[in-house]
Amino acid sequence: MNTDNYTFTTTIKVRDYEVDVQGIVNNARYLHYLEHTRHEFCDSIGYSFREMHERGYDPVLSRAEVDYLTTLTLGETMVSCLNISRRGPRYIFKQDIYKTDGTPVVKALITVVVLHEGRVSRGDELNEAFGPYLSPL
Amino acid sequence: MNTDNYTFTTTIKVRDYEVDVQGIVNNARYLHYLEHTRHEFCDSIGYSFREMHERGYDPVLSRAEVDYLTTLTLGETMVSCLNISRRGPRYIFKQDIYKTDGTPVVKALITVVVLHEGRVSRGDELNEAFGPYLSPL
Amino acid sequence: MNTDNYTFTTTIKVRDYEVDVQGIVNNARYLHYLEHTRHEFCDSIGYSFREMHERGYDPVLSRAEVDYLTTLTLGETMVSCLNISRRGPRYIFKQDIYKTDGTPVVKALITVVVLHEGRVSRGDELNEAFGPYLSPL
Amino acid sequence: MNTDNYTFTTTIKVRDYEVDVQGIVNNARYLHYLEHTRHEFCDSIGYSFREMHERGYDPVLSRAEVDYLTTLTLGETMVSCLNISRRGPRYIFKQDIYKTDGTPVVKALITVVVLHEGRVSRGDELNEAFGPYLSPL
Repeated sequence: MNTDNYTFTTTIKVRDYEVDVQGIVNNARYLHYLEHTRHEFCDSIGYSFREMHERGYDPVLSRAEVDYLTTLTLGETMVSCLNISRRGPRYIFKQDIYKTDGTPVVKALITVVVLHEGRVSRGDELNEAFGPYLSPL
Repeated sequence: MNTDNYTFTTTIKVRDYEVDVQGIVNNARYLHYLEHTRHEFCDSIGYSFREMHERGYDPVLSRAEVDYLTTLTLGETMVSCLNISRRGPRYIFKQDIYKTDGTPVVKALITVVVLHEGRVSRGDELNEAFGPYLSPL
Repeated sequence: MNTDNYTFTTTIKVRDYEVDVQGIVNNARYLHYLEHTRHEFCDSIGYSFREMHERGYDPVLSRAEVDYLTTLTLGETMVSCLNISRRGPRYIFKQDIYKTDGTPVVKALITVVVLHEGRVSRGDELNEAFGPYLSPL
Repeated sequence: MNTDNYTFTTTIKVRDYEVDVQGIVNNARYLHYLEHTRHEFCDSIGYSFREMHERGYDPVLSRAEVDYLTTLTLGETMVSCLNISRRGPRYIFKQDIYKTDGTPVVKALITVVVLHEGRVSRGDELNEAFGPYLSPL
């Protein structure tokens, strides 16, 4: 599948323990996949979550909108994609998860604010890191 | 705090392993709390998730909107409340989580469809069970 | 069931999301139940995990032995019991989980050491707290 | 590091949400890593957990012994290795997890029985699949 429209793409294989009694990946797991994808993106641009955390910057969710379109199950692999935008002190991640054949699984809009020593930060240090990767809203 | 405006209310204590390296309950955990609350509600009206599942009815999320307002941490207890409405084949749960002092933690709108043998069900059996508890949209 | 032989007992209801595709509580979840039980015990004697953590004491596992005897599934409630002993700098928790009818589910021996600022502590402060509750090995 | 003594080896990167408030991977997570490694091994020999499950074979743990030697934290990658042996109806997995520099993290002995339609199976079909990979006890 074509992922040219995304700033960052990674693949994640479902782990069997993530599948619940209904035979599908439990809905909360997708929040984990989405977080993991954002953190892999941060890694990829050289500014890891660990490094942020050690410098006192803690990204936290302020809002999540998730549309569940198709289910994933045992043995499947997903393609997890994102774009990042900025609105004031908020980073907005447009995150889409697909099956490897391109079937949409989840479409999400995740709003993140960055706390610095417990207060919402304008995040100048982060803006420098993320600036080159921002998409228009 | 006053929970008269809700159809169902339960309390959940944060388990320490649910708190992440940032010192707060990880964002994905709230989806678990919300699911657990819905299932406790079903239990309370005498139609458990287990019974649904055994009869071939599987509720699955079609959409989740979650606003994260305040964080929870080690040792805290939450009050988790819900109202349920219906729009066609969809059940819409308005779910709010508070600290015990009434501070809002999470406000969520969770849309659920019920699959019966893999297909979206109008859920007549479920409507009978949930009917008396529905709020207007 | 009779739990007189244990220093501490709590009940935990299975949450439906903890049940995996095999229809049983996933093996790793029991480590969570066991940890949660230990932390509830600490709470009950007035020295919470949170307080320990804030004072720089971090209990970490050095060994877990878990016998899985029966499975738990949707809607079930467990009775989780523990005794605590001490050998040098190690706390040894004998932890048993039962169904409410007394059927043994899990028998575990969990060895914990307490780190203080990253080093194994003799834990004098902890010994004072836990001393009255210790069983012979 | 040299993994020649193991039948199967895979690498797993810690996901940041797996790190708890103590700044280390929570003890229960290792049970997930160990399970995931066993399932990846099954995949690698062409007999996936999904296929087993669909044929009515369900591997379940009967015992876990886990020594926790070093902690893992944010951003780290582990090398997860296993050997498999058989004793009567039990499969015994010797599983070791290392840091990428060879530091031992966890050493585990996991005993698995296979249920077939709810009863312990001698697992002739599985023996055929796993036979070529068995180590002496």
